Amino acid sequence: MATIFSKIIKGDIPCYKIAEDENFFAFLDINPIAKGHTLVVPKIEVDNFFHLDDTILMSYMPFCKKVSIAIEKVVPCNRVGMSVIGLEVPHAHVHLIPLNNMGDASFSKKKLEFSKEEFQEISNAIAKQFQIDFL
Amino acid sequence: MATIFSKIIKGDIPCYKIAEDENFFAFLDINPIAKGHTLVVPKIEVDNFFHLDDTILMSYMPFCKKVSIAIEKVVPCNRVGMSVIGLEVPHAHVHLIPLNNMGDASFSKKKLEFSKEEFQEISNAIAKQFQIDFL
Repeated sequence: MATIFSKIIKGDIPCYKIAEDENFFAFLDINPIAKGHTLVVPKIEVDNFFHLDDTILMSYMPFCKKVSIAIEKVVPCNRVGMSVIGLEVPHAHVHLIPLNNMGDASFSKKKLEFSKEEFQEISNAIAKQFQIDFL
Repeated sequence: MATIFSKIIKGDIPCYKIAEDENFFAFLDINPIAKGHTLVVPKIEVDNFFHLDDTILMSYMPFCKKVSIAIEKVVPCNRVGMSVIGLEVPHAHVHLIPLNNMGDASFSKKKLEFSKEEFQEISNAIAKQFQIDFL
C-alpha cells in the first residue's frame, strides 16, 4: 500500500508544496516544530533513510541544501537544521527545521499551530524563493 | 583557530574513533544521548552543514550510511537516526543516533554516562564492524 508521502507526491493528498525534482519532493510538515519546518522525501518508497541507494543518498543533500537556502531567506533563523528519525511513517524523510537555539530542534515540545492561510503563505514564499534561486 | 573537531581529526585531542576516509572522520560523541551515538565530521572546516560544497555533501550520506550499518550491527536498535543542529561547535557535524522510540532522538534529555573503558569497548566494536564490512 502506498505511504501517505507517496499519496502526497502523487497529488492524491493535498500538501503545502515547496519544490520537487526528479528524485525528491519537499513540502511543509503540518505538525511543525518551527515556522518553515519542511519535509524532503525521496520519490522512491523506502522505509529506512540509510537503506536508500547511494545514488539517491548522493543527490539527497544537495537538494536539501537548495531547499534550506530558500527557507533561510524566508524564515529568519540562525541556520536550518536537519533531522531523520523515521519511526512514524515508513517512507524515508528528512526534516529541515529553522533553528535559533537547541530547543528549536526538539520533537518532544508542543507542535506549532498555523491556519491553512498561514501554511499557504509560508509555503508560497519558500516555493517562490526556491524558484527564483534555482529554477 | 582550529575547531575542537579539527584538533580531534589531527590527533591533538584524543577521541573514541570509529572510522575515516579521505573526506570524513567518525568518532563517539562523549555526551551521548544513546549508546553508540556517533559524530561524523567533514575534514574540511566549515561551520554550517548546508554551506558545504555539493561534492562533499554528495559523499557525506554514503559515508554515514556505512557508519550507521556498523552501529546497527553492534548496538541493538530499530534504526539509526540522524541530526544536524550545529549551534554549539562551528564545524559541521552529523549526529548518528541509534533509535528505538521518538524520545531517543531528544537532545534535551539527560546525557548518558559511560566509563572510559565502556566508551572504548563501544568504539572498538563499531570500528571493528566497519572494518569487516567496508575495508
